[in-house]
Amino acid sequence: MNPIKAYAAASKTAPLELSSIHRRDPGPCDVQIEILFCGVCHSDLHTVRDEWGGTVYPCVPGHEIVGRVVKVGPEVKKVREGDLAGVGCLVDSCRNCGNCRDGFEQFCEEGAIFTYNAQDKHSGGVTYGGYAESIVVKESFVLRIPESLDLAATAPLLCAGITTYSPLRHWNVTAGQKVGVVGLGGLGHMAVKFAHAFGARVVLFTTSPGKTEDALRLGASEVVLSKNEAEMKQHASSFDFILDTVSAKHDINAYLNLLKRDGTLTLVGAPSEGLPIEAFNLISGRRQFAGSLIGGLPETQEMLDFCGEHGITCDIEMIRIQQINEAYERLLKSDVKYRFVIDMASLKG
Amino acid sequence: MNPIKAYAAASKTAPLELSSIHRRDPGPCDVQIEILFCGVCHSDLHTVRDEWGGTVYPCVPGHEIVGRVVKVGPEVKKVREGDLAGVGCLVDSCRNCGNCRDGFEQFCEEGAIFTYNAQDKHSGGVTYGGYAESIVVKESFVLRIPESLDLAATAPLLCAGITTYSPLRHWNVTAGQKVGVVGLGGLGHMAVKFAHAFGARVVLFTTSPGKTEDALRLGASEVVLSKNEAEMKQHASSFDFILDTVSAKHDINAYLNLLKRDGTLTLVGAPSEGLPIEAFNLISGRRQFAGSLIGGLPETQEMLDFCGEHGITCDIEMIRIQQINEAYERLLKSDVKYRFVIDMASLKG
Repeated sequence: MNPIKAYAAASKTAPLELSSIHRRDPGPCDVQIEILFCGVCHSDLHTVRDEWGGTVYPCVPGHEIVGRVVKVGPEVKKVREGDLAGVGCLVDSCRNCGNCRDGFEQFCEEGAIFTYNAQDKHSGGVTYGGYAESIVVKESFVLRIPESLDLAATAPLLCAGITTYSPLRHWNVTAGQKVGVVGLGGLGHMAVKFAHAFGARVVLFTTSPGKTEDALRLGASEVVLSKNEAEMKQHASSFDFILDTVSAKHDINAYLNLLKRDGTLTLVGAPSEGLPIEAFNLISGRRQFAGSLIGGLPETQEMLDFCGEHGITCDIEMIRIQQINEAYERLLKSDVKYRFVIDMASLKG
Repeated sequence: MNPIKAYAAASKTAPLELSSIHRRDPGPCDVQIEILFCGVCHSDLHTVRDEWGGTVYPCVPGHEIVGRVVKVGPEVKKVREGDLAGVGCLVDSCRNCGNCRDGFEQFCEEGAIFTYNAQDKHSGGVTYGGYAESIVVKESFVLRIPESLDLAATAPLLCAGITTYSPLRHWNVTAGQKVGVVGLGGLGHMAVKFAHAFGARVVLFTTSPGKTEDALRLGASEVVLSKNEAEMKQHASSFDFILDTVSAKHDINAYLNLLKRDGTLTLVGAPSEGLPIEAFNLISGRRQFAGSLIGGLPETQEMLDFCGEHGITCDIEMIRIQQINEAYERLLKSDVKYRFVIDMASLKG
């Protein structure tokens, strides 16, 4: 099986190009997956271009991975050869600390091992992600994928899906609540779908009037242009929960003011600059400003099962791997509805 | 009864001086209280000097009021003539909105009526606080005071007490938890006492090495000098809850990093400048940054009853009303352990 084809960046200014990498042979508890589709997350671009620092080259990104199991170790019980399987943002953790035991491997106290650009404890070097023919992952980090869903449109559930599902569940979004979603991108469009599926009345906040029609189609009841102060003011103190998916620096206070007493605004984007918070906006109404990071393995499986039952997938634009550099440029302009997914068959051609 | 003696400021630069004010005659649902002690809150000083804007003069501050009931209207059931009674930060609200019905009169949707410098719906003008011989308040805003406690040391429970008790209760501080308290002033010393009484292991954060002995005496298990980075680092990701009582601008991120997964840091001080929050500190560990404002009437009564059962009062320094301007100067230098309380008998003399 080795070496295998992958798309890698050789430096922070280099484009992603065809190259070859090695994967370990599957051990007793490992699953080898032929990758069929891989979603394109903004984190891929940040890492490839070393925008967060610490990128080791060559860098093979991709953490929204779905495919077919081609080989399993003798101890593996979760999946069998021929099954669909997925890999999200995590490929390993200590499995022993309090957070791991509670099913929050993303907060592993020893440090979670992310799917790419993390220290690879098995093969040395760094982990390589899903822009590749195949991947070998510990059974515990493999997800079962519902057969009922469109497979390509399922891939982004592994990051965009769980990142929005998890906080909506944790802060108990339920029927009858008024829930805001800030931003309609890869994350935001999934947040709208999930909050709507949970029975909430969803209000989308955007700076783009052009997104209104889509937001309503995806499940929002109302769209508010966040630059319109009068429109914002009409919603003062009325939200149970707001999920903020915007990664750029923006005014959090304007949204905190829209929360009811005991309401929470949760950030899943990660602006690089500090966000100035007016204490009064929290003290008045006992409001909370929180953050959330992807989700652990048990909840990711729960989310996939929920999507299977309710027919929920991402809205995607399929690309060939040869279009990835162009896709990154479009991502920078938010020119995608709402997630690029790479058809990995193109890597074989 | 009218006019009565009070201490009032005539302008934002004037000292508090003996003057006279009018109180309404008690209506059917009103309680008239002879004020015996009144605590001195930093809010008194902010308002007297118009530091928050909007102060109407003459200004009579004071919202930590305890005394003896001298007259009740015919409809009053909660207290009788001769009973001890207290008045905190609130004297009225609509009693009809969702927040009022839920017992959160401080968040009244029509606007809570604060004990001083708020619009007085009964007598016109603004409300006058507790630096006065007596006060007339609606029964619903009167608190019963346990007879078992030192009365003077009970007065600051009406603001400093409920402000710290309420968030510790709301975020479920219980036995076995590790709880931080930032700052050892009027609020902080009560937070230490309550968190300790709830069974938590309390760590006090301070910039003053001189406060260690007192903090331990009040119930803290450990004192951390917040300027000592190495000491702070030892507590990373270990706190269930942190109550931050500091009103000056300070680095919240240093404390957010000390929270466990799902931990909350709650601010009860209100720095006037925005506090820059690093998104990563919230996202990592799904932490929450929250605010809390005093407490509603039901919870204030619950707190007073709890203090009665557990023998909890404030550590106070008694002053005569004639010393109030000097006390304000000392307050600015944090030169008080830990609350000034005015012996209102001095106003008669």
